[in-house]
This record gives sequence, structure tokens and C-alpha cells, in this order.
Amino acid sequence: MAEEAVPGVENLKLQDGQIPPEEEAEDQLITPWEVTSGSQKGVNYDKLIAQFGSTKIEQDLIDRIVRVTGKPAHHLLTRGMIFSHRDVNLILDAYEKGKPFFLYTGRGPSSEAMHVGHLIPFMITKWLQDIFDVPLVIQLTDDEKFLWKDLSAEEARRLANENAKDIIALGFDVDKTFIFSDMDYIGSSPDFYRTMLKVQKCVTFNQVKGIFGFGDSTCIGKISFPSIQAAPSFSSSFPQIFGGRKDIQCLIPCAIDQDPYFRMTRDVAPRLGFPKPALLHTTFLPALQGAMTKMSASDAVSSIYLTDTNAQIKKKINKYAFSGGQATVEEHRRLGGNVDVDVSYMYLTFFMEDDDKLQQIREAYSSGNMLTGELKKELIGILQKVVSDHIERRKQVTDETVKEFMTPRKLKYNY
Amino acid sequence: MAEEAVPGVENLKLQDGQIPPEEEAEDQLITPWEVTSGSQKGVNYDKLIAQFGSTKIEQDLIDRIVRVTGKPAHHLLTRGMIFSHRDVNLILDAYEKGKPFFLYTGRGPSSEAMHVGHLIPFMITKWLQDIFDVPLVIQLTDDEKFLWKDLSAEEARRLANENAKDIIALGFDVDKTFIFSDMDYIGSSPDFYRTMLKVQKCVTFNQVKGIFGFGDSTCIGKISFPSIQAAPSFSSSFPQIFGGRKDIQCLIPCAIDQDPYFRMTRDVAPRLGFPKPALLHTTFLPALQGAMTKMSASDAVSSIYLTDTNAQIKKKINKYAFSGGQATVEEHRRLGGNVDVDVSYMYLTFFMEDDDKLQQIREAYSSGNMLTGELKKELIGILQKVVSDHIERRKQVTDETVKEFMTPRKLKYNY
Repeated sequence: MAEEAVPGVENLKLQDGQIPPEEEAEDQLITPWEVTSGSQKGVNYDKLIAQFGSTKIEQDLIDRIVRVTGKPAHHLLTRGMIFSHRDVNLILDAYEKGKPFFLYTGRGPSSEAMHVGHLIPFMITKWLQDIFDVPLVIQLTDDEKFLWKDLSAEEARRLANENAKDIIALGFDVDKTFIFSDMDYIGSSPDFYRTMLKVQKCVTFNQVKGIFGFGDSTCIGKISFPSIQAAPSFSSSFPQIFGGRKDIQCLIPCAIDQDPYFRMTRDVAPRLGFPKPALLHTTFLPALQGAMTKMSASDAVSSIYLTDTNAQIKKKINKYAFSGGQATVEEHRRLGGNVDVDVSYMYLTFFMEDDDKLQQIREAYSSGNMLTGELKKELIGILQKVVSDHIERRKQVTDETVKEFMTPRKLKYNY
Repeated sequence: MAEEAVPGVENLKLQDGQIPPEEEAEDQLITPWEVTSGSQKGVNYDKLIAQFGSTKIEQDLIDRIVRVTGKPAHHLLTRGMIFSHRDVNLILDAYEKGKPFFLYTGRGPSSEAMHVGHLIPFMITKWLQDIFDVPLVIQLTDDEKFLWKDLSAEEARRLANENAKDIIALGFDVDKTFIFSDMDYIGSSPDFYRTMLKVQKCVTFNQVKGIFGFGDSTCIGKISFPSIQAAPSFSSSFPQIFGGRKDIQCLIPCAIDQDPYFRMTRDVAPRLGFPKPALLHTTFLPALQGAMTKMSASDAVSSIYLTDTNAQIKKKINKYAFSGGQATVEEHRRLGGNVDVDVSYMYLTFFMEDDDKLQQIREAYSSGNMLTGELKKELIGILQKVVSDHIERRKQVTDETVKEFMTPRKLKYNY
């Protein structure tokens, strides 16, 4: 049968998340499924901004967020871990005019073991919900994990609930937050399915091939999946929350590797008469072994899990955390440590909220006054608290609480 | 990302519904979207059986159906309009052992105007429900029509309800029949969506490319749609009917052009641990202009609509129905008419239940005793009754009745 070409292919291909092989070889590869960098300093994010066509976050945008919300900026924003965006100014324009918007983020429940790196986008999302006081939808893509991993549908669905408990433990407001499993929600919302369908009608195999690197042997579930990650960007997918309104703007905080999904989403939005979702991109938490890869849930020694004991955390940091220190104490005293490649120091920039103390540590370590062991001791203390506090809060999350967050319902918001 | 090849590709390619171009040109093309034949006698169904790899229905199978049900055979079965099958013997084995099975058929609601040709598969389905006394699910693929046609999702959904009224007017038993719109049911049944997903994980782009002729510019909705037409073949898609049982056999009466969907379905069934659906294939009702194409809802003069007046029916048959009669009355008396190409006679074989009378007409027309005008007069009378009776029964179908048939619920059946 005749196939009509769909406009926007070129556009998408230009912004393509895939990197040409020759560059890959010598440099970095960032896709929704793989993150590697050729440099010990980690991913070159400026290069990624140029490649993805997003906008670098400059001080004036940070100042504007502080100004319009009257709330202090998050340390992940001031320290550049929220480094790139798309159309956040439009969201702030709307907010200043008292116009509504909502937050959307997600998680692929591929395993029970979430690690501290998984906390980053949710910490930022929680902060955004607090300062803007807006509704939030969190998608758990259990269908994606069923399609990509060697998991049964039932196991993927179970993992979604386990991960929901970790997410809820971060303290999201149940009155303003809807967490959903694709496998359950698609099967309980005709409006979500219709929104999926409308996206599916606008996107060709050519486009997903270019954006995600799909091929002829890709299963048809993976090929249509991008429409499922796109759908929550549109308020039409949640009539119980937005009362059927299709024009409410969306802001998506996510790690930069998810951007290809939303470039596709932004490309189709105008053709569906929906507003383009805005984005806030975060950097990756490096693997313990070094910033050339991100922390991975499937690599036990590269990650600090949200279930690790104090002893395990201490051991992993001391044993595996890549050090920017010198070979001997003498050398270290003389030359100082290199914070640009030191994983323990990088982690402190994510998890130590006190700017002054972080600055002191930076100076002391760089000058050689502070040894790697002392630096790691600081980090161990902080991560032990982060994880043990998380374990405590997660214990409080009952199945009833999960059910409450995951029940399609009206949310409380003032517009 | 690495793509694993899925077994069964070759298998499916061998049974491929597409015909090589060189053959197409000189001969017939039968796909879910196009039916054309190079012969005035219409589609060569024996050739189709060989090409699709199905089984011709012989007298012994007809005898067995009569024997196990104790009911007379339908004239569409004895006259060869139900001409091919897959695994119907397994259904009869199960039935004889008192094992349950269910019926599944469907309709793509592309327009309000259904024509008499659309009645055929439903007439057969109704007969099967009556003689076997089994539950029936009828899928209205409004999502398919949204994806393939220039239709809004809302309009496609509306047409599904209009078509449901025509289907209900055939007299299906509301206690044993569930009619569903994909757009509504997928969004209200997590089990249906999970069954779709399981099929989607087993089928690659290569496979749907081979079976359906999809290409790089095909939208991703069309690419994954075959999983949606496959899902109702499995009892796991209807927990409200089958109480969660995944092992109940399915029999699908459908026009032969739908077979490619179910070859794919039968290929994946064993990998999902589900029984392969059995099939009964029907021939096409020819267009008025001749058997080289089937009746088409989009071609007003090729079709008798279920809304036509007696005058319209009379005019269309007299004006357009391709005649196997001779040029002059004298020649006709001398040479007789050719029933093999006469569309009015073909229609009588579909709609005239009286075998003896049909035989008399065949002899009278072939011998030249009966003229084309007299033959058409017989057909006009029958079609006027078929359509006016249908209009009468459709008037009785209220929105409440439609709602009742389309509400997911338990059905009454004795197993």
C-alpha cells in the first residue's frame, strides 16, 4: 500500500542522537542505552549541547528562576549538573503570567537495585515541584523493560512497584503526584492510548531508525515504544488531572541521554496541536571506576546502591573510587590532587550541599593538604547518611501509599 | 543497540501474503488493503490456497461439522464461499471432547456505509455461534482506520459505534457476544495491552515488512498494529470472559484477505505458550461491475449499501450488474447465459438460500430460457428484502443495546 512520507524527518535527522561511527570511536557515545566518554574527565557536555541542539544554562536563566520563584537555586543547578535546557524560558513566561504547567519525568524499572545516580533527576524534580508547586506525572516504563530486557511482563510490572517505593521515599507530595506503570495505565486510560496513537501516526520507521538506531530486526514493540514515552508530555494523556485540557505546558527534567525521545516529541507536537514540552537536562553520576562511563545498575562494583550497608559503602568507595591523588603521600603533598578526574570529589559536588565546605575541600585536596583517604572519608560519611536516610524513609512507604500514588485521580493544584 | 533476530522470519516469509510483482502484473493481488483479479471469473481461490498455505475445505470436513453439531450446513459452506481453513479439525476435536473454544471476527470501521458484502463474514459468524453455542468477540479496529485513513480518532471511534449497530442487527446473542472498539478496550484492559506487548516482542520489522509490505516511511503505528489484530486470538486478552484462562482455543471466520495477520499470529502463538487460532476463510462478494474486484465501500456504483432504497437497489442491479447474457435476446435464447461471469447469478449464490430454486435458475439461465432481465429481477427482489429487513432490525438497535454489547463483562457459556 502507498506510504505517505511524514514531514520533519530531515529536521530530526539533523538533531539525531546517534554519533557518526568515526567520531564514536575516538570520542563519546550518548544514547538512551549507552553512555561512554573517551575522557577521564567524563562526558564533554558542551559538545553534547552542540550535537543535540539544546541550550546551555547560563547564569541569567538561573537568576530568573530564583527571581520568579523567590526560592534559592538548587546546588545541582548552581554547580552545573543541570546544564542544558529547551524552552525553559517559555515555562517561566507562563509561570509569571500565572499560566499552568506540569512536570513529567520517568524511570525504566529494569531492576530492584536503584543506585544513588538514579536519585539525581528525582532530587531535581522534587525541588522543581516544591518551588513551582505544580502537578507531576512519573512514568514507569515497565513495558519498555519487558521489550528490551529478558524479563517477563509480570516481573517488569513488579519492579515498577519496587522502584515506585524508592521514588516515593524522596518525599513527593501525594496530592500533586501521579506515578504510573505503562502496563497498567495504558490499559486503563483510553485518552492515553489515543494520544499514543496520534504520535504513532506522525512518526515513521525512518525517523525512529535515525533517532534510536532501530533496524530491520528490531521488534515492532520497540519501534512503537517512543510514542509511549512521548505521550505523557501532553496533558491530553491525563484527563483525570487536567480535566480534558490539551494545552497545558510540560517541563521534563531528565538525564541528557533521554533527549532523543523528546526531540521526537517536540517535532510532532505542533502537528498534533499540542505545546512542545520544555526540558531540563542533567549530567550523569560517574561510575566509581571513573567518569568514562556512568554509574550502572547492572555493575555492582561501579555503583552505590540505595540498599548498601554503611560497611559496603565504605568498602566500595575506598576500594574502587577512582582517585585524582598522587602515587605517594610525598608526591601528593607536593603536587596536590586532581579534582577534575577524582570520582570521590565529583560525588561530593552532587551530594554535599554546603558550598563553602565543598570549596574548602577542593582547595585542600588540590593543594595537597588533604589526602585521598581524607577526601573519601568525607564522601563515605555523606553517602552513608544519604543511603541510610533513604532506607529509613523507604521503610515507611507501604503498599497502600504506593497504591495511592498510582491511582489515576484528580491532583490538587491552584489553576 | 544490539538487535537479536527473532526465529520464524523465514517461515513467515515463505507464507508471505505478498505476491511477487511479475505475478501481480499478469494475475491477482490479495492483501488486507487490495483485492484484484485478472479474470472475469474472479479470484482463483485454489491458487490462493496454495499461495497462503491454507487447506481447502473438502466435503468430509463439511460432513464432520454437520455430524458433530447435528445442525445443517450453511449454504455458504456447501456452495464453497467458505472455501479454506486452518486447523478447524482441532476445533472439532476439542468440541467433541467438550473442550471450550471461542469465535473472533472483526471489522475496520472506515465508513458509515456498510455494504451487503460486509454481511458475509458476519452471517457465517452468526451461524457458527448458533450451531456451536460459544462466546464471540468482535473487534472494531477504529485505531487501524485512524492510522490508515484521513480520519480523526474521534470520527473513527464514532464510526465504530455506527458499524456496531449494523453488526448487532444481524441478531447476535448479547449474552454470548462482546463487541469492542480498540480505542476504548485497549484503554480499559491491562490484560489486552499485555497480550499485545507479548506479540510485539516476538515480531520484527523484517517480518511485518515481508507480510504486509511496510517500508521505511510507514508510520510506527501501522508497524505495530498487527499485534493489535493478533491479540484477540488469545483468551488472555479477555479475562472478564475467560476468567484469566490463557489456553482457550479460538476460531476466526474472516475473508481470506485477512489471513496474513493470522499467519503472523499463528507463528508467534507457540512462543507465547498460547494455542494457535484456527481459521475459516470466505470468498469475496464481487463488485457489481464484475468479479475482477471485490465490492468496495468507497465506490458507490460498485456496491449495494445496507442503506439503499428498493429503487436504488433495482437501478444499480439493472444498470451496473455485469451480465453473462448474450448481446441479443435471439443469441441468448440460442447460446444461453454464462453463470461463471454473471455477477447477478454470483450474488444469488450468496443470498438465495433455496438450493433447488438456485439450481433451476442456473439451468434456465444457462440454457437461455431465462433472460438477464428475469435473472436480475430475482436478485433485486432478494436484495431488496435483505436490505429492508436489515434496515428494520437496525432501527431496533438503540444506543443502550450498543453499550450493552460493548461493555466488558462475563459472557454466558456452558464451560
